[in-house]
Amino acid sequence: MSNEKKIPYKIYLEESEMPKAWYNLRADMKVKPAPLLNPGTGKPLTAEELSPIFCDELVAQELDDTTPFIEIPEEIREFYKMYRPSPLVRAYCLEKKLDTPAKIYYKFEGNNTSGSHKLNSAIAQAYYAKKQGLKGVTTETGAGQWGTALSMACSYFDLDCKVYMVKVSYEQKPFRREVMRTYGASVTPSPSTTTEVGKKILAEHPGTTGSLGCAISEAVEVATKNPGYRYVLGSVLNQVLLHQSVIGLEAKAALDKYDIKPDIVIGCAGGGSNLGGLIAPFMREKLRGEADYRIIAVEPASCPSFTRGTYAYDFCDTGMICPLAKMYTLGSSFIPSANHAGGLRFHGMSSTLSQLYHDGYMEATSVEQTSVFEAAEQFARVEGILPAPESSHAIRVAIDEALKCKETGEEKTIVFGLTGTGYFDLVAYEKFNNGEMSDYIPTDEEIAASIAKLPHVN
Amino acid sequence: MSNEKKIPYKIYLEESEMPKAWYNLRADMKVKPAPLLNPGTGKPLTAEELSPIFCDELVAQELDDTTPFIEIPEEIREFYKMYRPSPLVRAYCLEKKLDTPAKIYYKFEGNNTSGSHKLNSAIAQAYYAKKQGLKGVTTETGAGQWGTALSMACSYFDLDCKVYMVKVSYEQKPFRREVMRTYGASVTPSPSTTTEVGKKILAEHPGTTGSLGCAISEAVEVATKNPGYRYVLGSVLNQVLLHQSVIGLEAKAALDKYDIKPDIVIGCAGGGSNLGGLIAPFMREKLRGEADYRIIAVEPASCPSFTRGTYAYDFCDTGMICPLAKMYTLGSSFIPSANHAGGLRFHGMSSTLSQLYHDGYMEATSVEQTSVFEAAEQFARVEGILPAPESSHAIRVAIDEALKCKETGEEKTIVFGLTGTGYFDLVAYEKFNNGEMSDYIPTDEEIAASIAKLPHVN
Repeated sequence: MSNEKKIPYKIYLEESEMPKAWYNLRADMKVKPAPLLNPGTGKPLTAEELSPIFCDELVAQELDDTTPFIEIPEEIREFYKMYRPSPLVRAYCLEKKLDTPAKIYYKFEGNNTSGSHKLNSAIAQAYYAKKQGLKGVTTETGAGQWGTALSMACSYFDLDCKVYMVKVSYEQKPFRREVMRTYGASVTPSPSTTTEVGKKILAEHPGTTGSLGCAISEAVEVATKNPGYRYVLGSVLNQVLLHQSVIGLEAKAALDKYDIKPDIVIGCAGGGSNLGGLIAPFMREKLRGEADYRIIAVEPASCPSFTRGTYAYDFCDTGMICPLAKMYTLGSSFIPSANHAGGLRFHGMSSTLSQLYHDGYMEATSVEQTSVFEAAEQFARVEGILPAPESSHAIRVAIDEALKCKETGEEKTIVFGLTGTGYFDLVAYEKFNNGEMSDYIPTDEEIAASIAKLPHVN
Repeated sequence: MSNEKKIPYKIYLEESEMPKAWYNLRADMKVKPAPLLNPGTGKPLTAEELSPIFCDELVAQELDDTTPFIEIPEEIREFYKMYRPSPLVRAYCLEKKLDTPAKIYYKFEGNNTSGSHKLNSAIAQAYYAKKQGLKGVTTETGAGQWGTALSMACSYFDLDCKVYMVKVSYEQKPFRREVMRTYGASVTPSPSTTTEVGKKILAEHPGTTGSLGCAISEAVEVATKNPGYRYVLGSVLNQVLLHQSVIGLEAKAALDKYDIKPDIVIGCAGGGSNLGGLIAPFMREKLRGEADYRIIAVEPASCPSFTRGTYAYDFCDTGMICPLAKMYTLGSSFIPSANHAGGLRFHGMSSTLSQLYHDGYMEATSVEQTSVFEAAEQFARVEGILPAPESSHAIRVAIDEALKCKETGEEKTIVFGLTGTGYFDLVAYEKFNNGEMSDYIPTDEEIAASIAKLPHVN
């Protein structure tokens, strides 16, 4: 207990202690994640095939599964210093409220205007685009977290930024849209008449409010048809997990400063970018047999790719124009129930995390949204941060694990990722406050139906 | 330049370096601020008269103009550790963008869910209410920053929190309302039928959308009529400036660590809580003749109490039920133009700051809102923080001073207060992004008309 006193509420690294290289999880995996396939030929995609879509340097990072540490360019490290290191917070108040002997820490990524960890990869992708002499980048955004982060990054490097925002979000989340515009991005509701694919979809479904898959298709079309543009993506890809490793590297360095060894590491999982980043250095030790940790992925019960999906090749987008990736998937035609409030709506999961899960290196669990918002509220009231619904999935399981410790008397150390803030999710909080929130768990039949539509790939 | 390199982007204090006492500016003032008067008798208010409205300990702080340092209770210091120390940020990116030899620092108070510095006083006021064994507190809120902060503080101490929110804000800012509800506060649109004064106003003005003055009247009525309740206020009062001194004390400690002496200290000014807090330790040295600083208060051109008001006794509220305070005022009947987007709408200014301004210890300037949003956008794009419109008044003047340095070649050190974030002000940003924002400067006649209605006090 006297040792304990020394641990501050927030552990900050000095600038000199910040990571100078990202960690590439794949380098230490004995079984590598399956390669991306060309949907036309069924063969692994080459750098040449990927270069019209992504920046050259990012293509190299995407395909590199052998280099363990990749230097973070000086310019990106300078930008990181504006909002990083992010604090590793000891949740003293939550522990007290739960009356648990567990020690709870969270790595908080919400202290920047984009409100989430997404900026860690956005700035890297913008940097490489600038370095390649490009004019700009295109992307899609759903709720807007990724679009906001990318707008900030592009504004910093004076790059043009074209965001295709799912029409229903564009209309229902005008504030997200305005943040992006304040950062100078052009934001187009998708589907739009600015692309061939958009026009086609509008002709076929005149009243559609759009989907992420459609917005991806539009963004990719614009990137490939406009010289000097490339497409960027905020999750799922290996390059994104690589950039997000800064989360875990900082967290581990902060823990090491105080000789703290976590028993459990918990992260929410949609496409996997935050989870892959948070667990990276812990998984490294686990893969190398140097240490053991319980690593838990938490997904929404309404979109349970790890816990109820199948491990197979599938399209990354609903429009089926993107490469095929081997992953735990519910099928690219799966759409989570409209009553699902937060993000974490992707039908599949990062190939890297899928392989690790398949090989038994991590666990996965799913939680229902009402209990997620209960955890969010409990956390907010004692820890003073209004968490994003996505992050609150991890809070839910961290609280559950801490309560188990209360029963058993174990003093486990729990670390979880608090990926962002909920300032733009207050419509969902309002529903919860009014007792109008409900849960929806897809039936076996629903999941079987979308899985039946998986592409036939060996 | 080699010395410079050592200064990090963000200077954080260690927990052990955080202030253990608040600083009471009045103790070092040769000419003390004029006392609050009882509007009935015209005599200075006694502790006895104030105790039905405010907690006893806060009454003592309100009236104490001799004790320089007042210890911060342990419980409040623990709470501060959840979100403090706030960073003192070197605005390297802004300096580069402006190409100025000036060195710019800002103290950022937005890294907590209330989104502003208001939490520094809210937690103190909630603590003293709890300590006195009260059931709860009442308050008013306009835009909602103060109400949010108070809700968080009350939730932490398990106090009931009744917020009267100006009806037009209640309807137009549902997200602010939901944050407060998430923290367990009851939020009532004002005027309401829950109070006598509310009923009276509704009878007289059936379609009214409310005003801050009316909300204050309702909150005070509920506090005084319900045993176990007191009323709390987020600005203007001496006690609030005292609590907010933590901003300046931290900022000065961070500067002292690197032997930095600012030339100019800039803060936005509405009721004066942030400005009074930020400048406290600098003003102390100035009052004691130990150092000199240019201290600049920045107010909106649409509500210019310092620059165009008169120094006289006035009511603190439009309802005229609160004590009389001597201050720079536009008259309690003055209402800023509806086109004014941000906060800083109070008709008067803290008595303490008014006396200091009157005695020549600080300057004041006013800025128009379009130029404020231009500064906000410029800042956001390079510094990565979406600033609150209020804070952006200080950004505007900091940029202007830095540009003057560019002309003269002077390497001045500028410190300004970045009081909060603009996540709940995106309707205003949208107006600005769409080119629909305009400026309004009240005419001399308008100001003369409200000043003519000042109470007649010696």
